[in-house]
Amino acid sequence: MIGALRHPVEDDHGRVMAVMDEWWGGLGGEAGSLYRATLLPRLYFQHFTDTSYVLDLPGKDLGAFLVGFVSQSEPGTGYIHFVGVAPALRRTGVGGALYRRFFTDVAARGVRKVHSITGVGNRRSVAFHTRLGFTLEPGDAEVDGLPVHRNYDGPGRDSVKFVKHLP
Amino acid sequence: MIGALRHPVEDDHGRVMAVMDEWWGGLGGEAGSLYRATLLPRLYFQHFTDTSYVLDLPGKDLGAFLVGFVSQSEPGTGYIHFVGVAPALRRTGVGGALYRRFFTDVAARGVRKVHSITGVGNRRSVAFHTRLGFTLEPGDAEVDGLPVHRNYDGPGRDSVKFVKHLP
Repeated sequence: MIGALRHPVEDDHGRVMAVMDEWWGGLGGEAGSLYRATLLPRLYFQHFTDTSYVLDLPGKDLGAFLVGFVSQSEPGTGYIHFVGVAPALRRTGVGGALYRRFFTDVAARGVRKVHSITGVGNRRSVAFHTRLGFTLEPGDAEVDGLPVHRNYDGPGRDSVKFVKHLP
Repeated sequence: MIGALRHPVEDDHGRVMAVMDEWWGGLGGEAGSLYRATLLPRLYFQHFTDTSYVLDLPGKDLGAFLVGFVSQSEPGTGYIHFVGVAPALRRTGVGGALYRRFFTDVAARGVRKVHSITGVGNRRSVAFHTRLGFTLEPGDAEVDGLPVHRNYDGPGRDSVKFVKHLP
């Protein structure tokens, strides 16, 4: 590991907002940028900090973050909502380290399975989740051989849904 | 009350998505529509159902909904994230009934204060929250005599922040 993971504080919300466009390479243009920012309101950096993590680089720049939570109404389930890794840190294992820290911490709270989703066509994300032991949940359609949930997060917002069972 | 409140199930996510444009009157055009849908992903209808509520109309159409949760990392705090009331039910007390049900249920879980936010300039929302006993938290700027938090949910996304202390 490059540094120590810590839990976010509320001010980390602004730090994440400031790097998103660069880290996602402006994917989807202005609409993509607004979409990602709206998916990650400040509330996650206020109310779910104890199962979320950030990595600071030695120069104090943000290196990576993971925002996740334990399901309130289904306490045996965890959910990983949003993850980002600085371009310079990709392929270094940082993403996997963030996920494994989440698995360890939520397992200690009684979580037995973890869910996550990704956009249709994001093969890199599918490969990443598969390496970490996630499987793809059956969907209501198939795209490029993968199960897809149509209109999962609203009209036209299709998703691939992952589940991982914790030991 | 017009009917009985119940907790949402996952399928209610699609029902809410289907009425949002009508209930918000297309406020903000296409960008406003996408913004609202993105603020309310399916995860809220999976993982926070036990402190969220929907009201069905006699004909089974959706009448109103409230999505809220207890802070995971600050368990004495509740948060009301998103509320909608069908145009035909406005000024009937349904919104207040949803909030009061939330207050009662989270108080029983040990919550002592509840937060909520609204957009700058939404005087109707400010008046509504004030009637329910919320006060406005100090901000870092002032707009029309009200305290405002600049860039609260990202660049350009200013907010008014409410707090209500439960008895």
